[in-house]
Amino acid sequence: MAGNSFGTIFRITTWGESHGRGVGVVVDGCPAGLALCEGDVQRELDRRRPGQSSISTQRKEEDKVEILSGLFDGVTTGTPISMLVRNKDAESGAYDSLRDRPRPGHADLGYIARYGIRDHRGGGRSSGRETVGRVAGGAVAKKLLAESGIEVVGYVLELGGVRAKIPNSLDSSSLRGEAEKNPVRCPDQKAAEEMIRALDQAREAGDSLGGVAEIVAAGVPAGLGEPVFDKLDADLARALMGIGAVKAVEIGAGVESARLKGSEMNDPILPAPEGLIFETNNAGGILGGISTGAPIICRISVKPTPSISMPQRTVDLTTGEATEIEIKGRHDPSIPPRIVPVAESMVALVLADHLLRLRAARI
Amino acid sequence: MAGNSFGTIFRITTWGESHGRGVGVVVDGCPAGLALCEGDVQRELDRRRPGQSSISTQRKEEDKVEILSGLFDGVTTGTPISMLVRNKDAESGAYDSLRDRPRPGHADLGYIARYGIRDHRGGGRSSGRETVGRVAGGAVAKKLLAESGIEVVGYVLELGGVRAKIPNSLDSSSLRGEAEKNPVRCPDQKAAEEMIRALDQAREAGDSLGGVAEIVAAGVPAGLGEPVFDKLDADLARALMGIGAVKAVEIGAGVESARLKGSEMNDPILPAPEGLIFETNNAGGILGGISTGAPIICRISVKPTPSISMPQRTVDLTTGEATEIEIKGRHDPSIPPRIVPVAESMVALVLADHLLRLRAARI
Amino acid sequence: MAGNSFGTIFRITTWGESHGRGVGVVVDGCPAGLALCEGDVQRELDRRRPGQSSISTQRKEEDKVEILSGLFDGVTTGTPISMLVRNKDAESGAYDSLRDRPRPGHADLGYIARYGIRDHRGGGRSSGRETVGRVAGGAVAKKLLAESGIEVVGYVLELGGVRAKIPNSLDSSSLRGEAEKNPVRCPDQKAAEEMIRALDQAREAGDSLGGVAEIVAAGVPAGLGEPVFDKLDADLARALMGIGAVKAVEIGAGVESARLKGSEMNDPILPAPEGLIFETNNAGGILGGISTGAPIICRISVKPTPSISMPQRTVDLTTGEATEIEIKGRHDPSIPPRIVPVAESMVALVLADHLLRLRAARI
Amino acid sequence: MAGNSFGTIFRITTWGESHGRGVGVVVDGCPAGLALCEGDVQRELDRRRPGQSSISTQRKEEDKVEILSGLFDGVTTGTPISMLVRNKDAESGAYDSLRDRPRPGHADLGYIARYGIRDHRGGGRSSGRETVGRVAGGAVAKKLLAESGIEVVGYVLELGGVRAKIPNSLDSSSLRGEAEKNPVRCPDQKAAEEMIRALDQAREAGDSLGGVAEIVAAGVPAGLGEPVFDKLDADLARALMGIGAVKAVEIGAGVESARLKGSEMNDPILPAPEGLIFETNNAGGILGGISTGAPIICRISVKPTPSISMPQRTVDLTTGEATEIEIKGRHDPSIPPRIVPVAESMVALVLADHLLRLRAARI
Repeated sequence: MAGNSFGTIFRITTWGESHGRGVGVVVDGCPAGLALCEGDVQRELDRRRPGQSSISTQRKEEDKVEILSGLFDGVTTGTPISMLVRNKDAESGAYDSLRDRPRPGHADLGYIARYGIRDHRGGGRSSGRETVGRVAGGAVAKKLLAESGIEVVGYVLELGGVRAKIPNSLDSSSLRGEAEKNPVRCPDQKAAEEMIRALDQAREAGDSLGGVAEIVAAGVPAGLGEPVFDKLDADLARALMGIGAVKAVEIGAGVESARLKGSEMNDPILPAPEGLIFETNNAGGILGGISTGAPIICRISVKPTPSISMPQRTVDLTTGEATEIEIKGRHDPSIPPRIVPVAESMVALVLADHLLRLRAARI
Repeated sequence: MAGNSFGTIFRITTWGESHGRGVGVVVDGCPAGLALCEGDVQRELDRRRPGQSSISTQRKEEDKVEILSGLFDGVTTGTPISMLVRNKDAESGAYDSLRDRPRPGHADLGYIARYGIRDHRGGGRSSGRETVGRVAGGAVAKKLLAESGIEVVGYVLELGGVRAKIPNSLDSSSLRGEAEKNPVRCPDQKAAEEMIRALDQAREAGDSLGGVAEIVAAGVPAGLGEPVFDKLDADLARALMGIGAVKAVEIGAGVESARLKGSEMNDPILPAPEGLIFETNNAGGILGGISTGAPIICRISVKPTPSISMPQRTVDLTTGEATEIEIKGRHDPSIPPRIVPVAESMVALVLADHLLRLRAARI
Repeated sequence: MAGNSFGTIFRITTWGESHGRGVGVVVDGCPAGLALCEGDVQRELDRRRPGQSSISTQRKEEDKVEILSGLFDGVTTGTPISMLVRNKDAESGAYDSLRDRPRPGHADLGYIARYGIRDHRGGGRSSGRETVGRVAGGAVAKKLLAESGIEVVGYVLELGGVRAKIPNSLDSSSLRGEAEKNPVRCPDQKAAEEMIRALDQAREAGDSLGGVAEIVAAGVPAGLGEPVFDKLDADLARALMGIGAVKAVEIGAGVESARLKGSEMNDPILPAPEGLIFETNNAGGILGGISTGAPIICRISVKPTPSISMPQRTVDLTTGEATEIEIKGRHDPSIPPRIVPVAESMVALVLADHLLRLRAARI
Repeated sequence: MAGNSFGTIFRITTWGESHGRGVGVVVDGCPAGLALCEGDVQRELDRRRPGQSSISTQRKEEDKVEILSGLFDGVTTGTPISMLVRNKDAESGAYDSLRDRPRPGHADLGYIARYGIRDHRGGGRSSGRETVGRVAGGAVAKKLLAESGIEVVGYVLELGGVRAKIPNSLDSSSLRGEAEKNPVRCPDQKAAEEMIRALDQAREAGDSLGGVAEIVAAGVPAGLGEPVFDKLDADLARALMGIGAVKAVEIGAGVESARLKGSEMNDPILPAPEGLIFETNNAGGILGGISTGAPIICRISVKPTPSISMPQRTVDLTTGEATEIEIKGRHDPSIPPRIVPVAESMVALVLADHLLRLRAARI
């Protein structure tokens, strides 16, 4: 109810603040018998970790995961999987000057309004560091999905106005391979170069850039999704909009749907050896909230990093008077490349949950 | 879990199929002491009802609501409010020809994949008629919100490529007034005329149009929203993406955020007599998942009505062979005008729930 | 959250007051493909209905159920099953004198403290009439359980101090057959006669009697129950203690366990052709919160009907002064016989839910 | 859903196995602004810890708690409170001989039936060690309750057939003081001596004893509890029956209610300076599922420790043949004294949750 849990059958609960003792997650409802080790989780955390290139924050986070429970003889036992990542590189002093000056574009004022108190060090619970728990939980979900032949791949589609061209011929593992070749996680190498240039310029100007990420889930069988309020697309929208900085979620043709005619939007249904196929995929793999068997396609619009070093207008909460802040410290000039593993995790968590929910659909 | 309930504290459960005996909703968790009568609910149902003009389906739905429980001496008692609307005008014969031919753009195949059985009459549970329960529940939520000075207003922003111009000077009740003056629910009367022309053309061509609706919530205090997975915007995204035909949800600047710089996106914070104000509202009234006190702004992209009378390619499920269908019967050529009261209801339900959840945030 | 729903996957939401327009239930999460008709539900409602004999209230409740949704071609479709029973014989005038004088042993004061308002007519939502929804929902659960060979049978074990002797040789359907032969639902016909005599005496004295009911579930496979908080026995305890007038819940040896030694309590495990059996069943079919394959055995202690016609001391809420009440009207002199179908329903609901939850336990 | 979480608004999720790396809990939904430190939790864990006297297991558990998140400047922030207790003294070799021989009275067979795999070391997740997380979470709940003047006190009422005499004149803090004076936690010092003698005899015989614990909550205001399925007593029953070894839960007069007449059971309502009082408390402070303002009284019947050193009959799972086991190692000869802080914690968790839920009951 306080919103730190996600999922119904496959359910994670995350905890931890940016500058507290650590961050972590408890995964409850993972079926027994799934092969799992710390390496499976560490690999995903390493993809999320900053400090890997010039374009992301230089904060050094080791992010070494420890699995504290739920495994026996290398497989899950059906009991909760608790995972812990200690915080290491936490200089909270850098944030003291921000204590009473809420940062534009950040959650600061909301926390104060809601709780009357706020851990201001590095954003506290509203820090991007909170996503460590999501990615660790998502790693377990991905393992479970792999058992059913489902793969979730994300990449950057647009950054600072530069739009990638993604050939339809690329399958999901090629997309993953191409995207991971460059620090902006864009599978179009030429666009990636332009994006990096745009980021360099923004950083020099003390500014930041927004962008678009796309997440594709391949191999999802037809039938996932509860028809009314827990539609598969509704749950994906919640999962993705709940990532900090996301301001829009699209499924399939998304915002373009509004400009299409029915005769253009509807995906014709064709006979196929194994049953049916759709000629196009404007639906993004979901109709009436239920997966159709076509790839699931989600897109998120990510706002530019709110922490910028340019002076910004705000109010001093102790005096009520206008003031300015310049946010120093280690900040990504653009979030989409680092949001990719987080968004993949959220999509994987939704799919893992609905895969288990499907089991109760028929007698 | 089976997805027919929505909300945590303020919670609705809807039920009913297009051509069954009726549709309805149980509202649980509405606080005691709220003045409520059938007229409050009927007024909202009348806004949802089709058959009111040339642009919507000619199906005559009386949609007379009966409140079966939860009221005493004209106020809510804290016990569940059960509401029933009988189905009247249900000619299911018209759908017989569609039984074995799944309609492109519809939920038909998903239901079969999931349940192995499907009430094909009028779309069964996946019919737009399912939203009667949402609107009835939303009417109660709106009454509760009104006690706190919160008003939710929706309107059509774009239809068939025609974009409305909405002057910033319009407050929420003026928006409502202007929007309800025309059948497309667009507060820009000139754009409304163009939209109607576009709809007439689409109908003549046997085709349909998509569009965009915007929902604004005014008077929402700061502090609503749980910070991590149950962010206010995440819950709104789920609520709105869960309405049939919605393919994208945006908050505030939405998809445009991806093209802005941090210095453009961040809303400067200014001192004000009553505390603080934001110079702009790119955030759409939500930062870090918590309301800021500025108006909440949501936009949804709605695909064109999938039921079109033009021939479409599909497969005959009994033979597995390619065939065509032409969908006759009563169908709206465009959904956005009718989706407006449904979307308002979903936003109201999210806000009512979070308003009650806020009460537990502090000791 | 407001407590009118029960279950996680197989979930019911009940609504309705004693003297409102009706009572009912929405069953969500029933798997698709279950054969179900109104007769299945009516049969259970008829068992619950009062007015069948001299020992229960003479209120004439027709309790005719109408299934409003969720069925197609005689089977469930996976969508919510909404059921409605109209209230017929509701003379609320008889309760006017009780409006401001809370009845000892009743929920009256609690409702006022909690909600500040109370539908005093016939107990409103706290009336035994609320159980109509439980029994209707339980009827669906029983049908689902029958598909897996599970049968739930309840009977009265003790009434007014008279204890029945139940031969171990009786199987569950014989127990049901014997119990339904007499109005106190006791499978020991001799004890039943004594119980009826005790009831007649209590009624003449304007008093009421308590008793004990036992519910047995046969055919439950091993493996049902989540190990920590949602133990099968924990969920049964909640289900049964949540029935009005129940003051104790026992599993297996129950309160006697406290007086046994480990060597007496532990059920020895023996080899058997089909795997294992237990020599005794002190555990009542549940160990560590998980079913063992032995019959599930629950017992509930039911307090005497609080509505008695003898004068009782209370306070006039308008004056704050001591006063007396004599509760006239139609009241069962003892609840256990009528609680049997309700308790069976609650046990069936718990088992149906856990049967579906079991499906997610392994990959 | 997998049952390792408890509560709705005030919600804990526990994790950990007896011989894994540790055990712990995440508390979500604790309101912001509550003063809390590790000492508050450690004090309760110390009460739970074994090895404190001759009557409990000699396993040395340091059980040092670390609070990993959710605090700032000594108060809760509204974000999740994660607590970790490392396992220290874990010799799992002692359990190897039990791997394939399920222990009578234990959860072993259920885990195998449910999950197909089981961490057999020390009972794994079904070990009493799992209650560390409950007690740590309960410590936070107790602090929250103390802010509202609510105190929860538990003690042993009966052990090995020896029944304590508890004078009505003892208030809750005197009860606590008397109970903590002896290792069996019985406030009747003379009975305590007899209980200890009985325990010594049982231990020498290689056997174990059952008993009864009582938990009283004083200072609970009227109005707590949702009326139908989430009745306060229903939730207490679930909370208490969900503790390992509990076989019966009673509220107020409990099983005795079945033998009383209505005129004896009903607690007369009397005028009082501050409103109303009840002459007696057979109801145990709860009517219709809602607290009345009188003390809440719960009793649990606890079966004898299933781990006994006498030979017991079981089956070898590898051969399917009959065999015997003698359970060596460190085991409490009786559970009730150690269950007291666990039962207090569960009662505190239920009350804390319902205290927050009450806030949403009225507009």
